[in-house]
Amino acid sequence: MSQKNYKMIISYDGTRYFGWEHQPGKDTIQGKLEAVLEKLSGSYIEVLGAGRTDAGVHAKGMCAHFSLETELDAEELRRYFNRYLPEDIAVKQLREASPRFHARYNATGKTYRYTIYQGESKPVFDRKFVWTIDEKLDLEAMRAAAGELQGQHDFAAFCKAAGKNKSTVRTVDAIDIKAKGEYLQLTFHGDGFLRNMVRILTGTLVAVGKGELTPEDVAAILEEGDRRQAPPTAPAQGLCLIKVDYE
Amino acid sequence: MSQKNYKMIISYDGTRYFGWEHQPGKDTIQGKLEAVLEKLSGSYIEVLGAGRTDAGVHAKGMCAHFSLETELDAEELRRYFNRYLPEDIAVKQLREASPRFHARYNATGKTYRYTIYQGESKPVFDRKFVWTIDEKLDLEAMRAAAGELQGQHDFAAFCKAAGKNKSTVRTVDAIDIKAKGEYLQLTFHGDGFLRNMVRILTGTLVAVGKGELTPEDVAAILEEGDRRQAPPTAPAQGLCLIKVDYE
Repeated sequence: MSQKNYKMIISYDGTRYFGWEHQPGKDTIQGKLEAVLEKLSGSYIEVLGAGRTDAGVHAKGMCAHFSLETELDAEELRRYFNRYLPEDIAVKQLREASPRFHARYNATGKTYRYTIYQGESKPVFDRKFVWTIDEKLDLEAMRAAAGELQGQHDFAAFCKAAGKNKSTVRTVDAIDIKAKGEYLQLTFHGDGFLRNMVRILTGTLVAVGKGELTPEDVAAILEEGDRRQAPPTAPAQGLCLIKVDYE
Repeated sequence: MSQKNYKMIISYDGTRYFGWEHQPGKDTIQGKLEAVLEKLSGSYIEVLGAGRTDAGVHAKGMCAHFSLETELDAEELRRYFNRYLPEDIAVKQLREASPRFHARYNATGKTYRYTIYQGESKPVFDRKFVWTIDEKLDLEAMRAAAGELQGQHDFAAFCKAAGKNKSTVRTVDAIDIKAKGEYLQLTFHGDGFLRNMVRILTGTLVAVGKGELTPEDVAAILEEGDRRQAPPTAPAQGLCLIKVDYE
């Protein structure tokens, strides 16, 4: 028996977690997945994700990989995970991958969706997965601002604590804004996103929707590159990582 | 100003409640609604529901009425409720009704839906609103058993603690069993349902789906009228009151 490399797709309700990344003494998604592998193998095995979601952010299609020596086949391994993971984390798919597959380095794009509740009542059943905004939002202005943000830019104004020597240039090739009944869905696709970036972009688009900023203001903030000029970060609970792309 | 009678439609996530009916010292839906009216009016005002949902059962369309003297119009009153109710209870509609309108006595029918999760993974996002069943269920057998249960019958075998002098005859005119992706929806419509009746009917149909009972067994249990012969009650969390009918 030899070590194999596995790729898995995970969904989770991030409400009660301190984000993806393991932290001593705190419940995290990575930590819960690694705990199951430790139970199975008796030793620590790292689970590497395509990225790190913030505390309270959800996922329907996070991707991760790990190396393991086991007699279980992939479907048995998936069932083992689901049996021992808490009820708010599920492994949807698991399969053997090439030994060189790396969930983060091989990712070529990501889709995030931010959901806003705009109804007349209250979102009783999905209250933990939406941001409730009572004001009516101007979708045309939001779409114009989204047009300013799309493309390859330095997104320094739209991230938290950019590292000094790290590039803040990213390509966001689509920001789709769709009204669906009482909900508004903002779907972002890009080659990668900086820390808090989708939530700051959402906060910015909502500020435009409320008339607090114009699409031209957004273009100027992008140009200026100063985080303090961009609006506040939207709450974590409305955000979900939908899909990670690989070649 | 005089007292007016109001009709409202309420949705709630019943997870953390001891059911609809007020009970001293316990969180109930009726209790939370009455607490808002007491806050508004300064005195106790009874909120009368179309029926009583069990602890842990949800609703998208519970109906209730109450009498109140207020300067608020119906829409202001609805907003007042939603402002002071907890986030897992919402008033979807509220309007003035005829002084004779009574949510329970005037109800002519009810629709309940029971949702079963049958997927390969785990229902991470709606885990509090479904019953997860791993075994594959035989839908044709379930539909045949549903056919035996439809119509006017004495449902004494399918209710909890029937009162000695109360009729257990009800008419269930439709039991619809529908596979929707990873979910199975059992939708019941009838003139009224006895205590735990929808959950016992669901438990019975699931037992048929697993091959533990035949549709003929179900007909015999209905005929016999003995609760101890019918299968266990399905868990509360999968059940939702969808709609109450009025003439």
